[in-house]
Amino acid sequence: MKPLRPQIAQLQPSLIREVANAGIGRSDVLAFWFGESDEISPIKVRQAAIDSLQAGETFYAHNLGLPPLREAVARYTQDQHGQTCGVTAQRIAVTSGGVSALMLAMQAILGVGDECLVVTPIWPNLLAQPQILGARVRTHSLRPFNGLWQLDLKALLADITPETRLLVLNAPNNPTGWHLTHDEQLAILSRCRETGTWILADEVYERLYYGGTRCAPSFLDLTRPDDAVMVAHSFSKSFLMTGWRLGWLVVPESMLDAMGKLIEFKTSCAPVFVQRAAMAALARQDEITPPLVRHLQNCRDTLVPLLQAIEGVEAASAAAGMYVFFRLPGHEDGLLTAKRLVSEAGLGLAPGEAFGPEAAGWLRWCFASRDLSRLHEGAKRLQSWLRGA
Amino acid sequence: MKPLRPQIAQLQPSLIREVANAGIGRSDVLAFWFGESDEISPIKVRQAAIDSLQAGETFYAHNLGLPPLREAVARYTQDQHGQTCGVTAQRIAVTSGGVSALMLAMQAILGVGDECLVVTPIWPNLLAQPQILGARVRTHSLRPFNGLWQLDLKALLADITPETRLLVLNAPNNPTGWHLTHDEQLAILSRCRETGTWILADEVYERLYYGGTRCAPSFLDLTRPDDAVMVAHSFSKSFLMTGWRLGWLVVPESMLDAMGKLIEFKTSCAPVFVQRAAMAALARQDEITPPLVRHLQNCRDTLVPLLQAIEGVEAASAAAGMYVFFRLPGHEDGLLTAKRLVSEAGLGLAPGEAFGPEAAGWLRWCFASRDLSRLHEGAKRLQSWLRGA
Repeated sequence: MKPLRPQIAQLQPSLIREVANAGIGRSDVLAFWFGESDEISPIKVRQAAIDSLQAGETFYAHNLGLPPLREAVARYTQDQHGQTCGVTAQRIAVTSGGVSALMLAMQAILGVGDECLVVTPIWPNLLAQPQILGARVRTHSLRPFNGLWQLDLKALLADITPETRLLVLNAPNNPTGWHLTHDEQLAILSRCRETGTWILADEVYERLYYGGTRCAPSFLDLTRPDDAVMVAHSFSKSFLMTGWRLGWLVVPESMLDAMGKLIEFKTSCAPVFVQRAAMAALARQDEITPPLVRHLQNCRDTLVPLLQAIEGVEAASAAAGMYVFFRLPGHEDGLLTAKRLVSEAGLGLAPGEAFGPEAAGWLRWCFASRDLSRLHEGAKRLQSWLRGA
Repeated sequence: MKPLRPQIAQLQPSLIREVANAGIGRSDVLAFWFGESDEISPIKVRQAAIDSLQAGETFYAHNLGLPPLREAVARYTQDQHGQTCGVTAQRIAVTSGGVSALMLAMQAILGVGDECLVVTPIWPNLLAQPQILGARVRTHSLRPFNGLWQLDLKALLADITPETRLLVLNAPNNPTGWHLTHDEQLAILSRCRETGTWILADEVYERLYYGGTRCAPSFLDLTRPDDAVMVAHSFSKSFLMTGWRLGWLVVPESMLDAMGKLIEFKTSCAPVFVQRAAMAALARQDEITPPLVRHLQNCRDTLVPLLQAIEGVEAASAAAGMYVFFRLPGHEDGLLTAKRLVSEAGLGLAPGEAFGPEAAGWLRWCFASRDLSRLHEGAKRLQSWLRGA
C-alpha cells in the first residue's frame, strides 16, 4: 500500500482506548476511564431536538451556527465573564464539538514547522492536533506538589518566545484539575502580546469549578477584543451533552469570516436539531448546570477521602474538573497498572502516560458518576487489588 | 491583529453564498442555488432519531461509527457494486458529513507542496480542501460539447504523473452532471497504479443516475482491495438527509486504523441518534431512494425542455446529478448574471465561476424541487428577464 502522510501514519493510538479495549466483553468492569458523566442529557434538551425533527428542520444551516444560538452563547459568555468581556455573536463560531473547535483554531494558525507550545499534562488530542498539522510541538510541564500539579509561571513565560506561534493551555485542566489564576493569565497574556504569540485556551471545564465562584478564572475575563486569543468551549461537560458533538469557539471578530469558510470546508454546519437542543440547554442552564456542579463536587468529596484512606494511594483534591489524578507509589508504569486493574480488579481507569510523559505512573479517575455507590465500590476494588498486588 | 495562516486568510469566499446574500430578506426569490432538495427527511428516518433520543442515547460513540451502521453500509455497498467489490465494514469509516469524509481523506494523504490534480468544474470545497492543507493544486478541465461536459481521457492520463500524489474526481459531477464510464475508470486506475497516485472519488451522486442502471459507474466496481482508492459518500443526496451531517468513507483496510485516529482528533464521532437515523434510512432504502430518483428524473425532464424552449438559453440534459448546468450566450459573466437574476427576476441560481474558471458564464440550477410548478415559474422568470435584458 502507498504510504499515508507520515504525520498521520505515526499518530499515537489512544492509550485510554488501549486500556478500555482490555475490558471489551467484560460487563463486570466499573469504567471510569472516559471523560464523560454516566447521566443522560436532560429530557428538556432532548425534547427540543425531537420537536425540531418533528417540525422538519433537516436542512443545511449557516456555517457559523444559527444566529439565535450564537446570540444565546454570547449572552451566556457575558453572564460568566461580564459585559465588559466584549464577546458578541460576531465573535462566536458554533462547531461540531469542542474538539472540532480546537482543530479549527489550530488549523487557522499553525503551518508546517510553526512552533506550538503546549502546557502538559493535557488531553491527548491537544498534542495530536498540532502534530497532524505538521507543527513543531514543544511542551512545558506542570510539576506535581503534594499530589496536585502546579505551574512555574516564570519558567513558562521564559519558554514563550517570538518563535512561539501558538500557546495551547487547557485550564481547568484535564487530567490534573489544575487551573490558572487571573494574575497568571494576565502575565501570560502580556508575554504573548510581546512575543506575537496566539493563545488557544481550552476552557471547556470552566463551570466544573469548586473554588467558590460560578466559573473558573478565564482569559475572557481579561482579554481585549483584538487580543490574539481563541477560547474553545463545548456543550459536553456543563450541559451533559457529550454525544451531541456541539461546541463553540470565541475568536477576535476580524477572524470570524475566515472561520466560517474553514467550517464550510471541514463540516459545513452542525445539524439544526442539535443546535435547537443547545438553545434549550442555555435557556435552562440554571436548572442544569448548578445541580450538576453540586453533584460533581459531592462525587469528588466522596472519592478523594476514600482514596486517601487506602494505603499505597497518594491522592489530592483538585479545585476543578471531573477527575482525580493520583499515584500508586511503587507502581510506576501507569499503562501496565491500568491494564492490570481492568483484568485483575474490574476497575477501569485512564493511564497517566496518555497525557504526557511527565505523568507516567499516574492514573485518572473520572468521578462523574450518577450513583455514588459506584465510587465506593471502585475504591474498594482498588484497595483489594493493592493488598493482593 | 496577528495574521492567520496565509492559506486560511486567502480562502475564497463562496460565490454561491455571494449570490444568495444578494437575496437576503427577499421572500419572493425562487431559490435553486444550493445543492439540496426542498423535501424534509422521511418521517421514519426522523422517528429513528427521536426513538434514540428518547432512549437516552446521548453518549460518545466509536470513532469509526456504530458497528451495526458500518455493517449496514458495507451491505449497501455490496448491493450497489456486487459482493466482488470486497467492501466490508473493515473498510468503512462513518464521518460527520460527506465533506468531512473528503477532508479526512485529503488530510491523510496530502502534505504541504504535494501535487493534487483535480478534474474541474467541481464542487468548490474540493478545490479549497487541498489548498487548506498547503498542497499544490493543479486542475484538469472537462470541455463542453453541445451543452454537456466531456472528459478527454488521453489528456487526463497524460496529466497524471509520478509527481501526482492525489487525483480528485467527482463523478457523477456537481455541477455538470458528467459521469465516468467503467472503461475510463479502468484506464485512470491503471495509470494511477503506474504513477503511485492515490485516487479520491467523490461519488455522493452515484444513485442520482438516469442512465438505465440503479447506480452510476463507480470505482468500487473495479478496484482491488489494496488499490490506493478512497471513495467518499453521504446520506445527504440519496436519502434526503442534508442537514444531518453524516457520510462515510471507503478506504483500503490497512488505512482504517489511521482514519479512526484522525476522526478522534477532528470530530471524535457522529451522534448516536444521527447514526440510528442513517440505519433506518438504509433499512428503508427501497422506499426512499427509487421514488426520489424517479421524481428527480421527472424534475430534470420538466426543466430541461422548458429551458431549451427559451430563446437565448443553451441547455442540455445530463445523465446524472440534480443540476442543469447551462449557458446564456451573450451573458459571459455568470456571477454578474446570477446577481442580476436575483435582484431583477427573483430567480436564485449558482454562478459557474464557483466551480472553476472554465465554467465562467455558466449557471447551475438545482432541480430537486418537490413541486414541479416552481420549476415552471422559475423558467418563466428567466424567459421574462432575457426578453427585458
